[in-house]
Formats: sequence, C-alpha cells, structure tokens
Amino acid sequence: MITILDQDFSQLNQFLSERTFSKIFILVDENTHEYCLPILLGNLETETAIEILEVEPGEEMKNIQTANQLWEILTEMQADRKALMINLGGGVITDMGGFVASTYKRGIQFINIPTTLLSICDASIGGKTGIDLMNYKNMVGTFAFPEQIFAYPRFLDTLPAKELKSGFAEMLKHGLIADKKHWDDLILLQHLDAVGIEPYIKQSMEIKQEVVHGDFHEKNVRKTLNFGHTIGHAIESLCLSTGNLILHGEAVAMGMICEAHLSYLEGLISEEDSELIIEQIARYFCYIDITDFKEEDIFSLLLNDKKNADAKINFSLLNGIGSCVFDQQCTTENIQKSLNYYKKLSGF
Amino acid sequence: MITILDQDFSQLNQFLSERTFSKIFILVDENTHEYCLPILLGNLETETAIEILEVEPGEEMKNIQTANQLWEILTEMQADRKALMINLGGGVITDMGGFVASTYKRGIQFINIPTTLLSICDASIGGKTGIDLMNYKNMVGTFAFPEQIFAYPRFLDTLPAKELKSGFAEMLKHGLIADKKHWDDLILLQHLDAVGIEPYIKQSMEIKQEVVHGDFHEKNVRKTLNFGHTIGHAIESLCLSTGNLILHGEAVAMGMICEAHLSYLEGLISEEDSELIIEQIARYFCYIDITDFKEEDIFSLLLNDKKNADAKINFSLLNGIGSCVFDQQCTTENIQKSLNYYKKLSGF
Repeated sequence: MITILDQDFSQLNQFLSERTFSKIFILVDENTHEYCLPILLGNLETETAIEILEVEPGEEMKNIQTANQLWEILTEMQADRKALMINLGGGVITDMGGFVASTYKRGIQFINIPTTLLSICDASIGGKTGIDLMNYKNMVGTFAFPEQIFAYPRFLDTLPAKELKSGFAEMLKHGLIADKKHWDDLILLQHLDAVGIEPYIKQSMEIKQEVVHGDFHEKNVRKTLNFGHTIGHAIESLCLSTGNLILHGEAVAMGMICEAHLSYLEGLISEEDSELIIEQIARYFCYIDITDFKEEDIFSLLLNDKKNADAKINFSLLNGIGSCVFDQQCTTENIQKSLNYYKKLSGF
Repeated sequence: MITILDQDFSQLNQFLSERTFSKIFILVDENTHEYCLPILLGNLETETAIEILEVEPGEEMKNIQTANQLWEILTEMQADRKALMINLGGGVITDMGGFVASTYKRGIQFINIPTTLLSICDASIGGKTGIDLMNYKNMVGTFAFPEQIFAYPRFLDTLPAKELKSGFAEMLKHGLIADKKHWDDLILLQHLDAVGIEPYIKQSMEIKQEVVHGDFHEKNVRKTLNFGHTIGHAIESLCLSTGNLILHGEAVAMGMICEAHLSYLEGLISEEDSELIIEQIARYFCYIDITDFKEEDIFSLLLNDKKNADAKINFSLLNGIGSCVFDQQCTTENIQKSLNYYKKLSGF
C-alpha cells in the first residue's frame, strides 16, 4: 500500500498504533540520518523502543558484508520476529534493508520510507530486495513486500538536483511503457524541481504498483519495467567497477536511449517515435562516456543479466509510446548498432 | 512433493525430462561427493549440462562466507533463472543450498535429495532454508519450497550408525507430537539400522509434511515441530561454540527429555507419561555433558530463539503422547528445574 504522508506523519503513527511491534529498527545512512531522521523522529508517536542502525551511504556499501553486519547487530540486540524495520533512505537502503529484514529469522516485517525520487517512484515499490555481488546489481535478493510504503515528498527538498533527475528517469519510463498521458505530462516540464515533479509522483508510483501487482514474480508483464535496464544495468555495473559512480537514473536514461533505438531497429516502433523519445530523454540527462568500455565486457554483463534464461539476452522494448513488449531477443548486430548509435549521439 | 526413489532413479529422470533447465548445479560436500554423487550420476539421464559444487562438510561451514562463495561461483558460471540446484546431502547442504538457491537472482528452482536420515525426515521437508550466524542456528534464511524432495533410503547404508540415531530423534518427535501409532511403532525397534528404520521413513516424512502444509509460515500448528528444539537448539549452539560438535539429533533428544519433563512440571502430562517418554528416548541416545555451561548463557540463547516474541521464551510442549501444544511460556524456575533434572539423570 502506498501512502503520501501528511505533514505530521499521522498515517504512519496510525499504522504503528494499530500493530504491536516488539521493537522498531530504523535503518538510515549518514545522509538520511542527518537530513531525514530528525523529521521522522520529530513526528513519530509511539511507545515502542526505537533503535537506529546506520550504514555508510552509497551503492558500493550494498553488499553482503554490510548485510552481514546488520544481521549481527539485529542478533546482538535480540530483535525478535515481531520487530519492525523501517527503511529510511534511497534505493540502497530500501533494497538492502528489505533483504536483511526478509531473511533475518526468515523474515521480519518492514516498511519503506523512501527519501529520494528514485526510491519513491521505483526501488521502494514492488517487493524486490537485494544486494550487489561482484559488481552485479541485486544479484542476491528476495521477493518480499514491505507492509506499507510511506512517501513524504518534502524529503525531496533536501536532495541535490542530480538526484531528482535520476528518479525522473524512472518516471519517464513508467510513461513510456504503460501510460502515454503520464509521459506527455512529464515532458512538458521545462526544468526539474521538487515542486514541479510532486504532482506526478503518486501517478508514477501507482503505474509501477499496478504493473507489479499483475505479475509479482516477474513471469510476464512486470518484465516491461526492465525497459532501459538491460543495457543500463550493464553500463552501470561497468561504471561501478571502474569507480565512476554514476546514478542509477543516469544509467537508465542511457539504457532507454539505446533500447528505444533498438526498438526501432527491431521494427517495433517508427524511426520518428524513437527519435522523439530519445530527444526528450536527452533534454534532461547528460551523456555517459562509454568509449572506454570493451564490447565483450558489455556483452558479458548483458548475458549475465538476471532477466535472461538459456544464454539469450532478453530485452523489454517499446512498441509504441505507452506500450512495451518483453522477452525480445535481439540480434548481436542490432545491440552493437544501438551502442554505436549512443556513442555517436553522445559525441565522446 | 515427496518421492521415494526407485533403484534406477526413474522418478528423478522423469522430473528432469518434463522440465527445461538451462543447467544443473549439484551441491555436495566432501562426503556426499564420495559416497552419493557417483550413485546419482550413474543413474542420471539428462542432456542438460551438469556442474558440481563442493563445500567442506559440517555445520560450522553453514555460514555466510560459504553462501557467498556459492553465489559467486553461480555468478561466474553464469547460472540463469532457469538453472536448477540439486542439494545432495544432509541438513547442512539442503538448508544452505536452499538458502543460496532461493536468494540467487531472487530465486532459482531447487530440489532436495537428502542423504542422511535427519535430512530425509526433517531438514529437507518444510521449506525452511538457512545459515547460521554468530553461533545461532538458521538465524538468516528464507521460507522457500524445493520443487520436489527425492528420498533414496539406500543412501543410509553409507552412514555411520551415529547419524542414523540422529535422524531417529526427529522421527520419535513426529510420533510424540502428532501420531501415537508412529511412536509406538518406533519404540518397538530394538536397535537402529537402516533396514529396521526404512519401513517408517515415508510415514515420518508425511507427518512432517502434513504439519507444515497446515501452517507454512509457522504461525500456529507448525510450531509443534519445535518440541525439543528450544532447549535442544540452545545446547547445540553452546556445544558448537565450544568446539564440541554434537549431532543435531543428539541435541534434540536432550531437548525432548528436558521438555517432556517441563511438560510434566507445567501440568500438561502426567509424571508417568513423561517418565515413559524419557526412558524410551534415553534408550537410544547418550547423554550430553552440560555441566560446564553457565545457566545465564543457556537463558540468553533461549531468549534469542527465533520462535520468541516480546522477550518471552515460547515452548512447544506435549499434552499427551501424540499431541502437542505451542506458545507455552514457562516459569524460569521450571526451566531451571528441567535442566537440573537432565543433569541429574545424565550423571555427569
């Protein structure tokens, strides 16, 4: 369930008063500890004991070592099966916190309070948890739903503009794969700020939730959410491994450009539509320099994408603006062409 | 689904022929590699590529480091979501293999081929996976069902008698908590060997499966399977931490003795019944020396048992032979008495 929180967090307080938890563990990183936790604690009304778990910020901390530390702390603090974990942060916190909660003592309850636009519109919804392994994103994880998702758009005011852009990529994706009107609304925005984006947040969250609801275990329609993510994830992994810490949304924007072009190459959309899409995406996002990445490394990562089976690379591609098909196996030649198209476009 | 395998593994071969797997990973330890894998491979008929994953044997290897190595190997071998994991071994292999499979890429399919009496009658059934953490058993894990469980009783011929005894403890438990006839059948056995036990294996597996089926997430009746395990697990953890590697079944036998006595102290069964039960259990199992363990350490472990909530210790206790009640909170005094009763009985 998705709830947009009032100024006084009344819906969260109501949730806590209706349930009995033995203890509340709030997972934060250094940033949300400083900027978001005081707001949360200032509004929280509960008799239940609260413990704060802090991890260092950043995708590179979303690994098994950090998960292991969190399991150990929960054990030391004698967290029982009636404990609640509150994941207060971006996607790293909601992914990892969800993974730790869903596996500690085979699962305790957790809620997500996403603090970035990316986690509000994407990571916090859909019941996917995970940690990275050997530079592969979310290689280890579970399907586990938070009890609730509480979004508090005012947290966005604390974010750098870059972070807003990053989440905006997923919102654009939601429009492209499932809702032309949402796409049309979004591309009218001249520049990105929290106030401009806020009216469209709930709509975007609901598009994602509806897609997920129809296919929890990603057997069919949920795969459409992977549009832009096949190539995007590979490039994100390569950047991560070379220490170039790009944002997830930047990688997704790059992936959407390649895969919109790929949709055209595979004959699914017109050249005109693909160029229109690419032009709009490029308006909001800088290009990533991928010239140093070896093609074989990119293909190795593409092959190891979680979405694949039988050693084939599966794409989710657009067959219209607001419409997406999944399990599309493209020719190596077309994949190469789409990468070269991006390189040319980016001008690096 | 539980299947007792024919001599030629025909049911397993049929299972594999009816599904499409991209690759088969067989998880073994050094022992099952030597004694069981040749039998399995000699009978396996499949075109699908097979990889063998070997870990060192023993409960002390069932930890996050080993799980991490397995995730890394699966990643390096580019296992995709259509890969199958076959867990060939005792409870350590089925618990850990199930955990790794159920979290790798958020879950690949797995089957269990348990090779010890303990894993045949207990660990391989019920959809609980896990690894140990900080001397706590199965502190991290998932609820995840194997696609099927294939039991091959001839594997028991390869086991030391001690291992048979260990699994026999769980069979006795199944009788005690749910089926008086099963208990009556079992205690007629004069000495334990594979041939004598074999006729009762399927019955014991089905008792467990039926209990689990009624309560997958352990909200109620499944808790009865924890009879003997509250104190048993605590003692097992303490032994593990001091390097005294007792078998799980030995700890359970100890726990059942304490908790049968506790059932009497709490007024749930007659002294006569509790003594009859204890006498029969003691016929098959040696006593464990618990005199060196501090009471506070035992209670600290009891408090951190996964079954607890609200800082209370929950027991599953007998209210008859073949009948069990759960969520029983006992007085500290009675718990102490039951431990002292065991110490006295054991004569250490």
